[in-house]
Amino acid sequence: MASTIRLFVEAALCDGALINLPQTQAHYLGAVMRRKAGDELVLFNGRDGQWHGRLARLDKKTASVTVLTQTREQQSAPDLWLLFAPIKRAPLDQMAQKATELGVSGLMPVMTERTIVSRVKTDRLKANAIEAAEQTERLDLPEIFEAQKLPDLLAQWSADKGGRRILFCDEELADGKEAPTIEQALMPFKDKALPWAVLVGPEGGFTDKERVHLKSLPFVTTAKLGPRILRADTAAYAALTLWQSVLGDW
Amino acid sequence: MASTIRLFVEAALCDGALINLPQTQAHYLGAVMRRKAGDELVLFNGRDGQWHGRLARLDKKTASVTVLTQTREQQSAPDLWLLFAPIKRAPLDQMAQKATELGVSGLMPVMTERTIVSRVKTDRLKANAIEAAEQTERLDLPEIFEAQKLPDLLAQWSADKGGRRILFCDEELADGKEAPTIEQALMPFKDKALPWAVLVGPEGGFTDKERVHLKSLPFVTTAKLGPRILRADTAAYAALTLWQSVLGDW
Repeated sequence: MASTIRLFVEAALCDGALINLPQTQAHYLGAVMRRKAGDELVLFNGRDGQWHGRLARLDKKTASVTVLTQTREQQSAPDLWLLFAPIKRAPLDQMAQKATELGVSGLMPVMTERTIVSRVKTDRLKANAIEAAEQTERLDLPEIFEAQKLPDLLAQWSADKGGRRILFCDEELADGKEAPTIEQALMPFKDKALPWAVLVGPEGGFTDKERVHLKSLPFVTTAKLGPRILRADTAAYAALTLWQSVLGDW
Repeated sequence: MASTIRLFVEAALCDGALINLPQTQAHYLGAVMRRKAGDELVLFNGRDGQWHGRLARLDKKTASVTVLTQTREQQSAPDLWLLFAPIKRAPLDQMAQKATELGVSGLMPVMTERTIVSRVKTDRLKANAIEAAEQTERLDLPEIFEAQKLPDLLAQWSADKGGRRILFCDEELADGKEAPTIEQALMPFKDKALPWAVLVGPEGGFTDKERVHLKSLPFVTTAKLGPRILRADTAAYAALTLWQSVLGDW
């Protein structure tokens, strides 16, 4: 039995609407998934909840769907961004997908002193986030931000970011003492409903200068992430998981 | 400045020992990393702690290292296995590496009803675990087990596995009630120092029959993993992270 296909669309979803799908989706539905006119599918757009639809027309290059009934109300993930130093292409695709599964509401590439990648395709980040949302029943999409340099980002942070705090994973606090665990560090914020961001570094980590600067900032919370060294993407998954467990919707 | 290379070796490590490295490591040291005789490096074997060594000889096909002084005592990760339904090759490599970073002591492929992959190369799992241990300062290696069929594994479990419990992630308990979070489910085991295993399913999940069977077993603890659907590898990273946070060494 064929499973129901779940598609992200840009158009508004409402009762009886007829939506034209782009050529890539027509190809996916017809050539890849062997669907035909009359088949049902599931639609979401990040704003209007989840809807059942029926393929009204499907040929090689075009497809349209009639929107039928809403099956789920719109829901939002907790307000948690992932700030990450971009890495090579394949791991970056993975990171965008897994961060979306883990419920981030924003993805922002950050250029640090040891970042080697010079350009990030935000289109590609968005495509990966959509793919993960389609496959994992998520109804909203993370916002994708343009890459920023770390010093610029931090300089503007407290003015622009509306009280959003940054969780920075490091072994030591600013005074040289051992950092608390993420659970210990986040516990005092449990009833405050603040927006947050998890920050992970590049391969090779942050420089000492960057670490000292980060720890001096009032909106940064420093916590340690276990006794073993983690790669940047693994650290991101672990920190997002623990944030969701303590402050999020897990 | 060149960073110090960290190598896993099979041989025993002790003061003054001369160790011959296999051709693959000779190639890596010379052709890839441009090292030469006299350069220092770091060695571990999963048993004897971490040692400084010096390259005694290096040519295209052979290399030997003189073991100098021990720099770290042997340490073990907590006793936590990952039982996973094998997936395609590239994600499986990733999963073996990341599970090693997250501190598992054992990796076991498990064949379920919906598992598509028919054969698992345990050599390849081991190579990935070694690579992750080399790069992340871990001193021990996870044990790699041969693949087993889920019903066989469960049938032998309580006799063979010495009180080891299985953490199984599912939305519902056996009685149909909502499952507790991993943190809630693990808390009663906090002072018991039991060995554990995290079990994650294949793409498409476990069948209803498998789920009912798992939940009927006295050594299985069922817990939920957040409101969004996670892919199998993401679920593994999240469950291992939360286990380490509640019962492990984080």
